[in-house]
Amino acid sequence: MRRRTFIKNATLTGLGITTFGLLDSNGKAFFGNNLKVNGQRIETRINELAKFGRDEAGHGYRVAYTKGDIEGRAWFMQLMKDAGLNPIVDHGGNIIGKRKGKKPSLKPIAFGSHIDMVPDGGNYDGTLGSLSALEVIEVLNENRMVTEHPLEVIIFANEEGGLIGSRAMVGQLTDDGLKQISQSGLVMADGIKAIGGNPDDLKNSIRKKGDIHSFLELHIEQGGILENENFQIGVVEGIVGILDCEITIEGFANHAGTTPMKLRKDALLAASKLIIEVNEVINSVPGNQVGTVGKIQVQPGAYNVVPGKVALGLEIRDLSWDKIEMLFSEIEKRAATISTDTKTTITFMREASFSKPALTNKSLQQKINESANSLGLKTKFMQSGAGHDSQQMATIAPVGMIFVPSVGGISHSHKEFTKTEDMTNGANVLLQTILSVDRE
Amino acid sequence: MRRRTFIKNATLTGLGITTFGLLDSNGKAFFGNNLKVNGQRIETRINELAKFGRDEAGHGYRVAYTKGDIEGRAWFMQLMKDAGLNPIVDHGGNIIGKRKGKKPSLKPIAFGSHIDMVPDGGNYDGTLGSLSALEVIEVLNENRMVTEHPLEVIIFANEEGGLIGSRAMVGQLTDDGLKQISQSGLVMADGIKAIGGNPDDLKNSIRKKGDIHSFLELHIEQGGILENENFQIGVVEGIVGILDCEITIEGFANHAGTTPMKLRKDALLAASKLIIEVNEVINSVPGNQVGTVGKIQVQPGAYNVVPGKVALGLEIRDLSWDKIEMLFSEIEKRAATISTDTKTTITFMREASFSKPALTNKSLQQKINESANSLGLKTKFMQSGAGHDSQQMATIAPVGMIFVPSVGGISHSHKEFTKTEDMTNGANVLLQTILSVDRE
Repeated sequence: MRRRTFIKNATLTGLGITTFGLLDSNGKAFFGNNLKVNGQRIETRINELAKFGRDEAGHGYRVAYTKGDIEGRAWFMQLMKDAGLNPIVDHGGNIIGKRKGKKPSLKPIAFGSHIDMVPDGGNYDGTLGSLSALEVIEVLNENRMVTEHPLEVIIFANEEGGLIGSRAMVGQLTDDGLKQISQSGLVMADGIKAIGGNPDDLKNSIRKKGDIHSFLELHIEQGGILENENFQIGVVEGIVGILDCEITIEGFANHAGTTPMKLRKDALLAASKLIIEVNEVINSVPGNQVGTVGKIQVQPGAYNVVPGKVALGLEIRDLSWDKIEMLFSEIEKRAATISTDTKTTITFMREASFSKPALTNKSLQQKINESANSLGLKTKFMQSGAGHDSQQMATIAPVGMIFVPSVGGISHSHKEFTKTEDMTNGANVLLQTILSVDRE
Repeated sequence: MRRRTFIKNATLTGLGITTFGLLDSNGKAFFGNNLKVNGQRIETRINELAKFGRDEAGHGYRVAYTKGDIEGRAWFMQLMKDAGLNPIVDHGGNIIGKRKGKKPSLKPIAFGSHIDMVPDGGNYDGTLGSLSALEVIEVLNENRMVTEHPLEVIIFANEEGGLIGSRAMVGQLTDDGLKQISQSGLVMADGIKAIGGNPDDLKNSIRKKGDIHSFLELHIEQGGILENENFQIGVVEGIVGILDCEITIEGFANHAGTTPMKLRKDALLAASKLIIEVNEVINSVPGNQVGTVGKIQVQPGAYNVVPGKVALGLEIRDLSWDKIEMLFSEIEKRAATISTDTKTTITFMREASFSKPALTNKSLQQKINESANSLGLKTKFMQSGAGHDSQQMATIAPVGMIFVPSVGGISHSHKEFTKTEDMTNGANVLLQTILSVDRE
């Protein structure tokens, strides 16, 4: 067994830092140690990567499987090679770089994110976690430090298109999924081929339960909670489940000039009442659940015609599936009343593509929290409202996720921004958490 | 002066009808007289005209300036020729057929409607009034009756495209109007040429104030009031004014998973509140005013994005322009509150294409009412919620409009229907009203 001693970091660094740490048997600090990432290097690389797939207006279109994505991946793999990671592309198109540990028999600690983006997306989403994963390797290299566990940097393919790479990695990418048209215009299978994957033999690169010790992902929050409440680090408790439902409201289309108010069956008026009820139901119970009507289409859709038919897109998200179902059933109940009041028919059709909530590992949550606190950072335990590759990885390994603030909560937009200081904090927490897991 | 005597129609017809009428100096009945239209002939012709421009599914596309319209007009003009009307096409494309009166110095009594239709429109809208106008001539021919005034049957061109023919006739079709693309795909001027008009010389076929004694139009109601309240004839008091307004609501588009409910600026939620307020404002005062939000578009319009921007199409109609303005200003007031509550910006942009209310002539209203009552028909004084060529004609002559019930209030649809009995009633009221005006 290794001898462990509490020391003041100050004695190691001479910088007057008063957090406490541990020494391993070789006298090296590994908890509250003085390893720090180079935040400037991360930022510089984010700006370099942003050049791939950028349009004349300066907006990013590094959509998976497109030229920008392929060139960005090549640039990233070169950096991985330079860092000694010897990257390979698995059959799902994911980039995997490995670094040996002292004990080859241990399962690897994996970490990473993705570098593809939505059209006109931001430069931080996915990219920060990917470049910070590489940064962790660079810092270890520079400090000639070798972990006990092998390490793996994973850059997932086509996260924005439906977690395609991570689904493939855990054996959840179906034949139907491979046939879908991706945002690039290519059928998914052809897209995977375009980035060096082998969609015909996905099963031979599946990672199974037990193959990976832990998976960690740093990501921008994509919401405004951390900034709003003045926290530097979010400790993600889980990734919300998502229920999508198409709601159809049928009234009767008629002449807007000749149909008296009391004889109308106005589908848009009914839809408006329902949108307000959705909002009220979601806000009727405490918690972090969200509910959105983001889509609406009306037929025939003219100034002079009473709307006959409306289609709405409803989405509910929460960490608890039971709560989602409870909220959904309350919305259905209120819709029945609206239907009667407005003389319309309201039909709910749940989408097949729901996703159940994915919880992160409690022990990893604690390690992230302790690592952040040891760096003097204020943390908030929170949910991830957005989907992430981590939710796929959670089906085969314990996962942990670290959030950093998004300015204005803006995401999936060229206005997306995270401050250098926050990025640096996040990468340092990733580094320290990896070291903490490694010591376990 | 002509001698007038009250008689029992029964003595004229031998049918036991107990309405009262008058005899002119020649002993001919002219009020409550026994002239009757042939309703079966009107219906047969409606079905014949419906064949022009009909698709394989049996739906009508006799859109102005298209092949179906051109062929339908040729068929109609042949019937007019056969009836001795010697039809001509004026520079705006309107068909005009004249029948001499006893006193050429008198101004003509004009009547008619239009035979073009909206895409997938109904067989009664416009057509009933047009074929009934022809029927009046046929009945007079068959009874060898010559009126004091000259008569004119007018079939207006492209009513559905914005009262184009009647605008041209009264000098209200602008150069800008001629440049617009019509539903046929042709620029308006080219469409007018396609049906034999002369758009380059519209001014030479303008009818001025005083050129026409009176204009009468029979039309289907296009609403459900007559049927619902069990009246056979609507005496139109006026054609409503229309205010159209595009309303833009700007919130902030953001990730529907990561943006907490309380941090949202949801443009669709704000729009829904406004749609409900529009409905409440319109219903807040007594009267026949109608207000409709028939159009809605949301950006970006995805399940997983909080709506950032919504555009609504609002329309208000009433016989009183002051009331329209009052309702509009109340809606603006309520929008201001919604804007504050939802942290959105709401902008109203009134369309330039508003139309002011057009009132029908009181004396013609009375004549229509008396004619209907003399036929034993129940009448309702009402507004026209839809626009009609009569509103253009009202700028140069006294106008009267007669409505007959639309089954289910359905209009601008292939489901549009008016019963033979109601069509016959309407045509008989038109005939009797013309005779009544002629006697004046």
